[in-house]
Amino acid sequence: MNILDYLDYIGTFSFALSGALTAASKRFDIFGVIIIAFVTALGGGMIRDVLISAYPINWIANQNYLWLVLTAVFVMYLFKSKIIPWSKTFFIFDTVGLGVFTVIGLEKALQFDVGFQAAIIMGMISASFGGVIRDILTNRVPLILKREIYASASLFGGLTYVLGSKLSWNENLLTMLSIASVILIRSLAVKYHLHLPRIKNDLFTKNQ
Amino acid sequence: MNILDYLDYIGTFSFALSGALTAASKRFDIFGVIIIAFVTALGGGMIRDVLISAYPINWIANQNYLWLVLTAVFVMYLFKSKIIPWSKTFFIFDTVGLGVFTVIGLEKALQFDVGFQAAIIMGMISASFGGVIRDILTNRVPLILKREIYASASLFGGLTYVLGSKLSWNENLLTMLSIASVILIRSLAVKYHLHLPRIKNDLFTKNQ
Amino acid sequence: MNILDYLDYIGTFSFALSGALTAASKRFDIFGVIIIAFVTALGGGMIRDVLISAYPINWIANQNYLWLVLTAVFVMYLFKSKIIPWSKTFFIFDTVGLGVFTVIGLEKALQFDVGFQAAIIMGMISASFGGVIRDILTNRVPLILKREIYASASLFGGLTYVLGSKLSWNENLLTMLSIASVILIRSLAVKYHLHLPRIKNDLFTKNQ
Repeated sequence: MNILDYLDYIGTFSFALSGALTAASKRFDIFGVIIIAFVTALGGGMIRDVLISAYPINWIANQNYLWLVLTAVFVMYLFKSKIIPWSKTFFIFDTVGLGVFTVIGLEKALQFDVGFQAAIIMGMISASFGGVIRDILTNRVPLILKREIYASASLFGGLTYVLGSKLSWNENLLTMLSIASVILIRSLAVKYHLHLPRIKNDLFTKNQ
Repeated sequence: MNILDYLDYIGTFSFALSGALTAASKRFDIFGVIIIAFVTALGGGMIRDVLISAYPINWIANQNYLWLVLTAVFVMYLFKSKIIPWSKTFFIFDTVGLGVFTVIGLEKALQFDVGFQAAIIMGMISASFGGVIRDILTNRVPLILKREIYASASLFGGLTYVLGSKLSWNENLLTMLSIASVILIRSLAVKYHLHLPRIKNDLFTKNQ
Repeated sequence: MNILDYLDYIGTFSFALSGALTAASKRFDIFGVIIIAFVTALGGGMIRDVLISAYPINWIANQNYLWLVLTAVFVMYLFKSKIIPWSKTFFIFDTVGLGVFTVIGLEKALQFDVGFQAAIIMGMISASFGGVIRDILTNRVPLILKREIYASASLFGGLTYVLGSKLSWNENLLTMLSIASVILIRSLAVKYHLHLPRIKNDLFTKNQ
């Protein structure tokens, strides 16, 4: 295992924990909590693998992922009264996961020869579509479509990777740099309440 | 055709009927009713086949499924005033379908060498994710995440199968035993209003 | 490029534009607008390609699609105050897209030997499931299930194609005829407010 594998496990664990917390707060039973933890952590990579035909898909190829998800759910139940007030801390893990999943997804897509444009999108799908499925299953409009610089940080990290790769930078350096750029952009966005622009509402209300 | 094939058709028909009733009660037009019947009956197996790369997928490999779905919709329209008061009876068919689809899905996954853990999950996906898609399309939080011992009965049946298989039990016996355990658990759960545990709400409301 | 390719690009552009308008009216940020435009235009073909195992999937095989989607989003932002009052005009493009995507999807499915029944369904999925994903992501009950002769026009066009094909009609003629039948049915349905039948509500309300 190299450092990216460790980071992958940390990201998976952290995404599973955040999914478990969301589900528990919606009063799902323990089975629903496991399902939501599972799709939040593994859904993005699963969609990526199906779209690029990378069989066996992520959680079938490496069944450690399943145990990681179950462990995260167990930890959530065990420490629930402690974890919830700490949710600020999880922002760090979640953001690291975003960066790591972006680069892992992008590199896997490049191995399947999808071209740079599609690889950047695959990195973003890996990193953020688990959360999209979580939101669909809990009947919310997916957060990434509305509120935060999240998937766009992932796209930026993917762009960084591809540009550096065209300039033949050292691959390990590039991996770290891309992850760091995702973390930096997302952290700055949250700290300074940055949003992407939206169209003003009155254009549409006038026409209804 | 062996007995499992007959049970498969009964399960498909019964799931299609339950989907058609849900859609009609939401005032979908006849086309919407067909779509919902289709995804309820075939969506779980379709997701399974895509995830394990079992091409051609279920309803393309065996086009009888399409006719079964259309027949179920036709039957629903023909007998609608009779069927709705009988909905208790359909609980039996629906529960048989749950058991049968679990074992069929699990056996198919094992043929594709996904390992026992993933096969149990694939059995559960086959049996219950048609209902999940139905609920997403009708804009409800999926029932299996909230209310009932349903997918968890499927997981238990899958576990039974895998344990018996490791003990080299007779395969036909094992198939019947697993199906029976799913039916038994779900029936007991509904009869005695059993639920899986949930976290109490106050932990979350305190923090909001 | 033959005429069908041009029509494909017009359909993609038009679907992307309609997705972008929907997302902007929901106050999604620019990134959310791009995502919704993307899935509206390319989601149907993407699902088709995964279901028939046609790898690489549509937007990976031909990356022009990505640029078309981005261009449509750009056009939407540039001319937003002009486009919205013109939305009647887009009905034409959208309906042409429906017809073209039906035939393209059906022909692609036939190349993968799925049989005529499944090919008709694949044509319908190609043409209308982008809109279904759009509606799921924006947390609405998919329009095609409730309100309009839309997917059913696509099914009718597919049926026309298959019947003509069994009668060995000229393929180019058949393509045009099928597209025209989709456009005609949808246009008549909208003009004369035609709907498919629904079950009356009182059957269900009596039983609740």
